[in-house]
Amino acid sequence: MKHGALTIEPWSVTERGLHLDLLPQTESLFALSNGHIGLRGNLDEGEPHGMPGTYLNGYFEILPLPHAEAGYGYPEESQSLIDVTNGKIMRLLVDDEPFDIRYGTLTRHERVLDLRDGVLRRDVDWTSPAGQRVRVRTTRLVSFVQRSIAAIRYEVTALEQGARIVLQSSLVANEPLPERLRDPRNAAALASPLVSEYHADDALDVSLGHHARASGLRVAAGLSHLIDASQDVATSSESEPDLARVSFSTELAPDETVTVVKLLAYGWSSQRSMPSLRDQVDAALHAARTTGWDRLATGQRAFLDDMWRRADIEIDGDPELQQAARFAIFHVMQSAARAEKRGIPAKGLTGRGYDGHTFWDMDSYTLPVLTYIAPDAARDAIEWRHTTLPMAKARAHELGLSGAAFPWRTIEGQECSGYWPASTAAFHVTGGIAEAVRRYVAATDDREFEQTIGLELLVETARLWIALGHYDAEGGFRIDGVTGPDEYSALGDNNTFTNLMAARNLSHAAAAAERHRDRAADFDVDEDEVARWRAAADAIVVPFDTEVGVTAQCDGFTRYRRWDFAADPAGDEVLLMRYPYYRLYSSQVVKQADLVFALYLFGDRFSDEQKRRDFEYYEPMTVRDSSLSAPIQAIVAAEVGHLDLAYDYVKEAALIDLRDLSRNTSDGIHLAALSGVWLGVVAGFAGMRDHGDMLSFAPRLPRALKGISFQMMYRGRRIRIELTQDAARYVLVEGDPLAVSHDGSPFELSVDTPVTLACPEPVALEAVSPPPGREAVRGAAAKIDGSPASRPVPHRKRDAADRIP
Amino acid sequence: MKHGALTIEPWSVTERGLHLDLLPQTESLFALSNGHIGLRGNLDEGEPHGMPGTYLNGYFEILPLPHAEAGYGYPEESQSLIDVTNGKIMRLLVDDEPFDIRYGTLTRHERVLDLRDGVLRRDVDWTSPAGQRVRVRTTRLVSFVQRSIAAIRYEVTALEQGARIVLQSSLVANEPLPERLRDPRNAAALASPLVSEYHADDALDVSLGHHARASGLRVAAGLSHLIDASQDVATSSESEPDLARVSFSTELAPDETVTVVKLLAYGWSSQRSMPSLRDQVDAALHAARTTGWDRLATGQRAFLDDMWRRADIEIDGDPELQQAARFAIFHVMQSAARAEKRGIPAKGLTGRGYDGHTFWDMDSYTLPVLTYIAPDAARDAIEWRHTTLPMAKARAHELGLSGAAFPWRTIEGQECSGYWPASTAAFHVTGGIAEAVRRYVAATDDREFEQTIGLELLVETARLWIALGHYDAEGGFRIDGVTGPDEYSALGDNNTFTNLMAARNLSHAAAAAERHRDRAADFDVDEDEVARWRAAADAIVVPFDTEVGVTAQCDGFTRYRRWDFAADPAGDEVLLMRYPYYRLYSSQVVKQADLVFALYLFGDRFSDEQKRRDFEYYEPMTVRDSSLSAPIQAIVAAEVGHLDLAYDYVKEAALIDLRDLSRNTSDGIHLAALSGVWLGVVAGFAGMRDHGDMLSFAPRLPRALKGISFQMMYRGRRIRIELTQDAARYVLVEGDPLAVSHDGSPFELSVDTPVTLACPEPVALEAVSPPPGREAVRGAAAKIDGSPASRPVPHRKRDAADRIP
Repeated sequence: MKHGALTIEPWSVTERGLHLDLLPQTESLFALSNGHIGLRGNLDEGEPHGMPGTYLNGYFEILPLPHAEAGYGYPEESQSLIDVTNGKIMRLLVDDEPFDIRYGTLTRHERVLDLRDGVLRRDVDWTSPAGQRVRVRTTRLVSFVQRSIAAIRYEVTALEQGARIVLQSSLVANEPLPERLRDPRNAAALASPLVSEYHADDALDVSLGHHARASGLRVAAGLSHLIDASQDVATSSESEPDLARVSFSTELAPDETVTVVKLLAYGWSSQRSMPSLRDQVDAALHAARTTGWDRLATGQRAFLDDMWRRADIEIDGDPELQQAARFAIFHVMQSAARAEKRGIPAKGLTGRGYDGHTFWDMDSYTLPVLTYIAPDAARDAIEWRHTTLPMAKARAHELGLSGAAFPWRTIEGQECSGYWPASTAAFHVTGGIAEAVRRYVAATDDREFEQTIGLELLVETARLWIALGHYDAEGGFRIDGVTGPDEYSALGDNNTFTNLMAARNLSHAAAAAERHRDRAADFDVDEDEVARWRAAADAIVVPFDTEVGVTAQCDGFTRYRRWDFAADPAGDEVLLMRYPYYRLYSSQVVKQADLVFALYLFGDRFSDEQKRRDFEYYEPMTVRDSSLSAPIQAIVAAEVGHLDLAYDYVKEAALIDLRDLSRNTSDGIHLAALSGVWLGVVAGFAGMRDHGDMLSFAPRLPRALKGISFQMMYRGRRIRIELTQDAARYVLVEGDPLAVSHDGSPFELSVDTPVTLACPEPVALEAVSPPPGREAVRGAAAKIDGSPASRPVPHRKRDAADRIP
Repeated sequence: MKHGALTIEPWSVTERGLHLDLLPQTESLFALSNGHIGLRGNLDEGEPHGMPGTYLNGYFEILPLPHAEAGYGYPEESQSLIDVTNGKIMRLLVDDEPFDIRYGTLTRHERVLDLRDGVLRRDVDWTSPAGQRVRVRTTRLVSFVQRSIAAIRYEVTALEQGARIVLQSSLVANEPLPERLRDPRNAAALASPLVSEYHADDALDVSLGHHARASGLRVAAGLSHLIDASQDVATSSESEPDLARVSFSTELAPDETVTVVKLLAYGWSSQRSMPSLRDQVDAALHAARTTGWDRLATGQRAFLDDMWRRADIEIDGDPELQQAARFAIFHVMQSAARAEKRGIPAKGLTGRGYDGHTFWDMDSYTLPVLTYIAPDAARDAIEWRHTTLPMAKARAHELGLSGAAFPWRTIEGQECSGYWPASTAAFHVTGGIAEAVRRYVAATDDREFEQTIGLELLVETARLWIALGHYDAEGGFRIDGVTGPDEYSALGDNNTFTNLMAARNLSHAAAAAERHRDRAADFDVDEDEVARWRAAADAIVVPFDTEVGVTAQCDGFTRYRRWDFAADPAGDEVLLMRYPYYRLYSSQVVKQADLVFALYLFGDRFSDEQKRRDFEYYEPMTVRDSSLSAPIQAIVAAEVGHLDLAYDYVKEAALIDLRDLSRNTSDGIHLAALSGVWLGVVAGFAGMRDHGDMLSFAPRLPRALKGISFQMMYRGRRIRIELTQDAARYVLVEGDPLAVSHDGSPFELSVDTPVTLACPEPVALEAVSPPPGREAVRGAAAKIDGSPASRPVPHRKRDAADRIP
């Protein structure tokens, strides 16, 4: 059951031995985060590393965005997630030999990411070049409970013979970055971005305060320590502007152990003063010392036990998918649990890929999961969008529009994309935020949120569509020249996905405004405006090619040249690395689900037959050069009956990082794809939809699986669903009775009476295939060894080729 | 008859007094060039200046092109015309006071650009702060005959009392540029781009050799001098790496004069060695000394007399237009006469605007003029394109295409545009080059050129279209996702202009290949390929909106939102400075003639009625934010019967620089618009077309004019045409008899028998107007004083807003 470096287990990911060549990837896989603080899975001793990584949500530096030819509305600067003061490092000296796994002999090295305990464990037996054997056991956590706190329990045992041991627990600012991270243009800005404001050391506590040179954001970092040793331990501490350190010196008898618990705290702000941040850090450390290691660890477990009760997916028949699904859910929770009114970046806080930016991935991939497993986290994320509403309104105004235009990519809220077809034309991003509001309110009945936060978002997003669209001669409401989800198309007229997003946004804004008339009046919404929203929604244009009988991704799309895959043998690189935008945009080649995404999200607008026809039309031209694609294709494939294909795509999404399918897991995990695993199972195999007022399911299990069970939250209830090949069993675990639909038939569900209903036989369909050379990755064949058996599926989001690879 | 600073005269442009605030503009207007060397009209003493300017055709520095987000096929570097060693400077010391018009008292200052003598004269009476009066008379020329030579005759007279006089004739490299020219990003590269290789001085001769730091291009500049004085003149010379100088010292008695003729020569190359360039410069100076000033001046006049015999346009009834038309033709000839297998930049060699790049302006605006007034210069320019064919083929290959894809902007041939919808999708640029070949061959019958140069260009450009297009289900040949001429649209499907350009290119390539079968075989053209060209040309798609009854600029264009001019009061700035591309591209707003250009260029494909309908449809949405627009609108307006509008547009083009209508004449003259004056008169008022095998005219004089006469060359003939309101008189000045068409009726023209034919009464049409606030500039109302009475018509070609303003 081993594939490459990682062991397949139900509740953990284990690396046996140390695969130095995979360090960049395992640092991402083993990254710990609570959404507030993120630590890459770097070795405790700091080196070697693929990329050091200590990130704070919302802590960034400002970089200039250079344009070869400027244009109106191009952002002039970007925000880039940067490494803050690194507090993970614990150096170990054994009889004057630094512990470094590149020297001496490793007789045992195991790292385990424990998905229930929420810790990263490491177990090492090392013989120094001088022959001294030691065992090092470390456990690391980023606390879900005390969100400013990370902790590392570091335990050294002298084996066979006694040893002099020195531990240095460090805080390091402006750590040198590997060459590849340094864009030559931004080298100066990013080489040493932190400017010291203070440094302090006192007994077992040290701290450093800095601000980022251009953004001015302040950060304080502090360490405190607890020692557990039977022998004497001498300690000292010291600090200077970019380094603070506590040293522990002791002599271990054979088989004797010294344990140091390192507590690490951060505070950061654009507004609060450095003394205030320093006090915050010291207070957090004070609290953590009081809590102590054991209670930090048990609190972590308790938090996750509660989380898994709501979020777990059990899979019978595919242990690899079982592990991958839990790994995926774990990273979703890590990225979001304590993000608390900050964004959720596309890589979580696991790497600097995409400059740490938040994209539509958050609203359209991660929130659809969080809404049903951690609704408070979903609400927090939407509230973050709401805090950026003034920027989005200013941006709309700058673009000559009304309402709010949310950014393609950002950390703090300002548009940071240097590619104008994204930054000034991908308006579906804004629709996705309105849809997140609608979904959250529908799933939680949180009317207080709708009134205070949701309504304003719905109103301002609706206004954008009115400004964007116009009525044509036949009375259709058109939206021309926009960029939809598919990044191999841009600036299309009447992008179906965008238009349907607009229609839904408009009609839900109208409904919400009518539910909260007084509040709506605060935003100057009157009846005429609501009527205009409804009229535009009703008149929305959906392009349809009557000759081919399919819905067009945008006007004219189905008349474009088809991609000649025969003439273009699938290479290792994605198409955008080998063809100019012109060629991609003018061809029937699809990077990622776009029309197919519309079939899922707005499935109530299409007949079953049309969904199948459309899916089968787009499938052979969809190359999945974005990791956002497979989950959506999985959902629609399952719905229209291509269950084996759905299964393949769920696995592809699930293994994206565990098998490094995109070859860039080193830059951080692919949060949208990992979110898509839950979606693929729940919306795909279980067919969950929330289009109307009733939650509905249409379960269809792929042949490869024996059963699937999962939970979800819905309007205060907890529902459990257990699928087998033949039937679905619905259990209301807690909450008031609820009407639910199974395969189109409503039934009542209450706590006392689980309901088991038969699933229809799958219809026999002629198989449909991805483009030649683009077959789905089926899991077992792929290895995380840098050379996947199948083609990688990079997701570049038009990132600069010379930026982070 | 004065408008602002400049006097209206038939054969010259005179500035009476010195308008310091207009120096940047007059430096462009008074620039002298032969297409090889260009000198801005800087004051001889070097300061003050708007922008120093000494340019050599094809001499550039390489600059990085930074991209906020890189993409496949984006050029990584650009080429920028730079100032070479400035040899125009002649400093004058009068009794220890430097002659500087900012000090002392100017009692007279006049500059005259003489369009027949081809010189810039300056006549100054100046009283120094110490009270010494001097007269300075200078005459400057850039020789059309000796193309490496410029010369300045500098004459100083002491008035009223004697004076000690020192003249310093300088060569200065790396002269400091005004702040505004220095893009902060490129400041380092452009601040001091020339690296010294040698400096030399010997008696009255000095020279400097440099290379440009990044491009490596070498340049040698040399001065030689002739003295004409009755008194003793002491001379000395000196040189250092960036400065060489000859000094002349004398004492003038009252009313005594000293005259120094400064001869300036340049040699530059990417291949030849510095010793070779130095020899070339010394040889050119040797020849020029032998020629002497008088014969340089008479040779200049003779060259221009000959030119005017072929190129003059006489206008009866509008002296302002008369002057402007000759000024325009003069600058066209200056930009091209001796360019000799180098490009013709959009600004000629009169300024650094657009980085000195050559655009499609050359092929589609300037060559259509040169072809008929200076066919050898047209041939040279096409041959330059031919020398860049290997780069254009490499570019096509890079873009995944076949044949040749010529650059949007370049100096040496490589694509230098950082805007991908131009650099990888504006394929009409390539069609314009094929059309230039077709036109030149049709107008000259130069079959030898067609076989050696033209055919290969036609073949490789035809191949591009085959790679770009594909057949749709109905058998139409579509070209999707391309950028046509209108820069307020991009990436449209089936841009009519581009498609018709493709069709013409394909059919003429087929015809040429059949005329030269053996030669075509050298390029692997076989009968099948020719058949494919013809088939694609025949099947080309031309989008037509049957509901509105107009030809669409591209698919769907006529369904876009109309621009709300009422909501957007015409500001001083062009729309692209106030709206994002998204908004412009998705609206029915047109920057410059596109569909209307097609009506002109491919007029044989449209009925008269359709042309009128189409023109009238596009006219109210065409804002002319490009100076390329007015001439083409003039031509089609005249054809369809809107003669007053045509007249307005010809005047707008003619006055673009003399009245600084675009407010950026300081960056150099607008060569395309100036070329368009000839086109507006000849193709507009005289209705000249060369679609088929017979030259045709359809003269229609606007009411404001009494008469127009002009010459043109055609297949070895010189034809003169004299128009009045009622009739056209055709004169074959020299050459064999020729059949010509007048208003659709062919007639025979021979040297002995001029033919006078009546012109039809103009049909009465309801007036059609440009968009509100975008009325044409009618000339007299506009002043060159920095505040045109009417809205300026900037033409930015998507240049970086922060580059050259």
